[in-house]
Amino acid sequence: MMDTQLVLNGFLKRAERYFPNKLIVSRTSETMTHRITFAEYAKRTRRLGSALTNLGMTRGTKVGTFAWNHHRHLEAYFAIPCAGAILHTINIRLAPEHIIYIINHAEDEILLIDGDLFPLVEPAIPYLKTVKHIIVMNDDKVAPQSSFENVHSYEALLAEADENFEFPDDLEETLPAGMCYTSATTGMPKGVVYNHRSIVLHTLGLGLAESFGVSERDVSLPIVPMFHVNAWGLPFAAINYGVKIVLPGPMFTPSLLLDLVEQEKVTVSAGVPTIWLGVLAEQEKNPRDLSSLRLVISGGSASPKGLIQAYEEKLGVPYIVGYGMTETSPLVSMSNYTTEMDDYSKEELLDIRASQGLTVSLIETEVVNENGLVPMDGKTMGELRIRGPWIASEYYKDERTAEAFRDGWLYTGDIAVLTKEGYIKITDRTKDLIKSGGEWISSVDLENALMTHPAVFEAAVIAIPHEKWQERPLACVVLKEGANATKEDLISSLEGQFAKWWIPDDVIFLKEIPKTSVGKFLKAKLRDDLKEYKVTN
Amino acid sequence: MMDTQLVLNGFLKRAERYFPNKLIVSRTSETMTHRITFAEYAKRTRRLGSALTNLGMTRGTKVGTFAWNHHRHLEAYFAIPCAGAILHTINIRLAPEHIIYIINHAEDEILLIDGDLFPLVEPAIPYLKTVKHIIVMNDDKVAPQSSFENVHSYEALLAEADENFEFPDDLEETLPAGMCYTSATTGMPKGVVYNHRSIVLHTLGLGLAESFGVSERDVSLPIVPMFHVNAWGLPFAAINYGVKIVLPGPMFTPSLLLDLVEQEKVTVSAGVPTIWLGVLAEQEKNPRDLSSLRLVISGGSASPKGLIQAYEEKLGVPYIVGYGMTETSPLVSMSNYTTEMDDYSKEELLDIRASQGLTVSLIETEVVNENGLVPMDGKTMGELRIRGPWIASEYYKDERTAEAFRDGWLYTGDIAVLTKEGYIKITDRTKDLIKSGGEWISSVDLENALMTHPAVFEAAVIAIPHEKWQERPLACVVLKEGANATKEDLISSLEGQFAKWWIPDDVIFLKEIPKTSVGKFLKAKLRDDLKEYKVTN
Repeated sequence: MMDTQLVLNGFLKRAERYFPNKLIVSRTSETMTHRITFAEYAKRTRRLGSALTNLGMTRGTKVGTFAWNHHRHLEAYFAIPCAGAILHTINIRLAPEHIIYIINHAEDEILLIDGDLFPLVEPAIPYLKTVKHIIVMNDDKVAPQSSFENVHSYEALLAEADENFEFPDDLEETLPAGMCYTSATTGMPKGVVYNHRSIVLHTLGLGLAESFGVSERDVSLPIVPMFHVNAWGLPFAAINYGVKIVLPGPMFTPSLLLDLVEQEKVTVSAGVPTIWLGVLAEQEKNPRDLSSLRLVISGGSASPKGLIQAYEEKLGVPYIVGYGMTETSPLVSMSNYTTEMDDYSKEELLDIRASQGLTVSLIETEVVNENGLVPMDGKTMGELRIRGPWIASEYYKDERTAEAFRDGWLYTGDIAVLTKEGYIKITDRTKDLIKSGGEWISSVDLENALMTHPAVFEAAVIAIPHEKWQERPLACVVLKEGANATKEDLISSLEGQFAKWWIPDDVIFLKEIPKTSVGKFLKAKLRDDLKEYKVTN
Repeated sequence: MMDTQLVLNGFLKRAERYFPNKLIVSRTSETMTHRITFAEYAKRTRRLGSALTNLGMTRGTKVGTFAWNHHRHLEAYFAIPCAGAILHTINIRLAPEHIIYIINHAEDEILLIDGDLFPLVEPAIPYLKTVKHIIVMNDDKVAPQSSFENVHSYEALLAEADENFEFPDDLEETLPAGMCYTSATTGMPKGVVYNHRSIVLHTLGLGLAESFGVSERDVSLPIVPMFHVNAWGLPFAAINYGVKIVLPGPMFTPSLLLDLVEQEKVTVSAGVPTIWLGVLAEQEKNPRDLSSLRLVISGGSASPKGLIQAYEEKLGVPYIVGYGMTETSPLVSMSNYTTEMDDYSKEELLDIRASQGLTVSLIETEVVNENGLVPMDGKTMGELRIRGPWIASEYYKDERTAEAFRDGWLYTGDIAVLTKEGYIKITDRTKDLIKSGGEWISSVDLENALMTHPAVFEAAVIAIPHEKWQERPLACVVLKEGANATKEDLISSLEGQFAKWWIPDDVIFLKEIPKTSVGKFLKAKLRDDLKEYKVTN
């Protein structure tokens, strides 16, 4: 067999050859929407490759992007790796010291920054050690004023560049193509490097009928940011499969997203549950025509069952939960139904949909505890570990590699059970799990149950030290405004739903649960605040 | 990223873990149909791996199969490559001297032969130089009487073998996994070796929504033989995606195939046009319920438009033409519609369907002539060349490699044009093309036109030498029984359809067109017979 290398260059060639008339709809500001064809896109991408090469980009050069979802970002997605350089997408929501850390740690030499985001980065420039050029992506050809010498206008550079620029045709598939840093619970973000092979294979994964089945017939709206695990790979899929892609740009609202779905006849969209909650509320207020939508994909955190139900029953749109992380490119599993479920009850089907799903082709998952592999019984917990051709094997130049990558597996730090169908159901994070008398208690299960109580706004359950049982659960609850409930009310609402020894020893009432910058519970803080807490009864 | 190897072993593990209850329906004789689950299949495959290992199979051992489509053949499809050995599927329809040649050339050490086919092979045994064991696949545990010492019963071997046999977990993806010989126009068949990587990637190709979209929801009926380019890859796809598979065994009829579709609720099936013609005729006589069928795939030779139309309009079943060859695993392109065609007329759509289609992901095709790449104009002819990760790079130990594999491309010997949408349309074989005055004339186009004449049964158009124009077309026609047509009738039927210089210089009437063993026109013979022919007018 030919040893044809699995590189992104083939995707770009395919797009320009077979799908020249397909559209990229790209919003770059609240007032500006661009519509360009794949043919124009390919020429602009070649121009960008040429311009970056003129600025010194060569194989292995790291080029950072600091941008929303739009066509220029998509041009960078191909111009950089197809030239053999490395696309480093930077999370614009990180704290300034983290942004400085990752640009220096990655050793980015060129940065592509959105015009409206440039003021965010500018104060950091004096601390950046390796950056030689900054290119500002604006709709006009004017670079902003800056004390930094080499600030260029993206459109001015492109105007002068070569639209027939030839990307190299001898890239190896193991060549790094992209990188993305993921926030750590403690310390600086950790970097993951993708290579051409992993991105190409992941793109095939997205195109499989068994997963999302992305194809030329789709219109794709990635709401998940392009700085977050490559917008789950949808931009690469769009170019390879000839998919019309709609990029919502900066400061989008649920209302704008729904308008885009209706106007552009979006068939598939991807985002986090918070987005889908907002979109649902807007749709219930101001209904749009969503008949084109064949699938919404949700990931990043667990989806409440009520949300899934609302999409499937009220809006008539299949709502599929996927599981993955920065380290996994991200697609690992998804909650599609198999034919075995054709006679399941509504409730059983909802259980499946809300799970993290069935592992996709080429990826291997296992759930392990001290007794080895857990059975498919829906209740034995263990840590989820993953391996496969688009799973990271290390953190980039980082000692924390040793914690997560062992014996050829990525240890996710997620605690899971396997349903009888082999579907993954995340029950906790390793660090949040409560180990009571040698048994494990899922803090997430208890929280979910508490949050169904009508008086409860938020609930976090944490482990507190216990002399006899090592650890016992403590419920930290925020009540809804004006609502009333006692400790006894809440405890009795849990009884019957859980084994007796799962029931929290105590409930304390708080004004709010401390949270991370992306809105997740900061349980480490809560545990720290309450480390001296003793159950009084 | 992890360097996880793309090997078939993962497919088998996936099948037994996630799809243990899926069925393999397998007909092994006119009276015997087996129904086994994937769980049972996996155990039997492990037993077979163990039994073959006991007989001396090790990495690189060639194991030949000489069998119909049934579950035992499917067991061999995984037991052999998952052990690191090479599955050599032998075409049972070859002439005895070709069978002897390829078994000796491949150096098969073990043969798996169907009970009813054993008498075909037995006379050849004394000429086989490397075969040490023959295993006969029968429903009982009794090996046939033979003068060859090591003839075993498949079921007897399996009964004694280990159902927990562990396949190695350290295979490299470039390890050869299978081989298949393809008939040559002249000389002995030529061997193609597949490796694990090429088969895994080809299986992903079959699972893409843009191609056949094979998934767990399918029920697959491969009519194309498992000794012919791995039944186009469908058996590998079935195991990986958890697809119920229906294997029609020996001596099936159109009536049996239709019964299987109806009874087993087949959703996708694949075969050559001749099969689909027979199935259509039977369905028109005795209609079955075909509502489960979402797709028939046709390949191997061109499909007449009338046939496609009958499936799509009369039976309501999409009929997709695929293009490929033994050297290409085989999937290269397929005639799916793109959204651009949503407003095409019925006729335009039929033209697309009858073409060889759009090139699938990861595969690159080009059509080249002496002026370089041909434009997408639907008329400029050139030779089709192909490259990609599941395309062969050579013939196994064969000097003819140099003719077909050049500059990193497989030269197919097929003459094609590209439609304006970039779809491939095969117009001729290189050797059958007529080169007149520096221009090319497609013999196939002229034949197709002649065969629409009501009096014509068969027509072959060949090149005859010409002093001024180098070559000119000559039509060789077989009239239908009792029908009458003169040379002038036929010539005038072509006028208007073709440029004047395309019209054959003469028409001769024959009793029959010489054919190959698989029913294709033997134009080399015809050219040879007529090499002294001079146009008389």
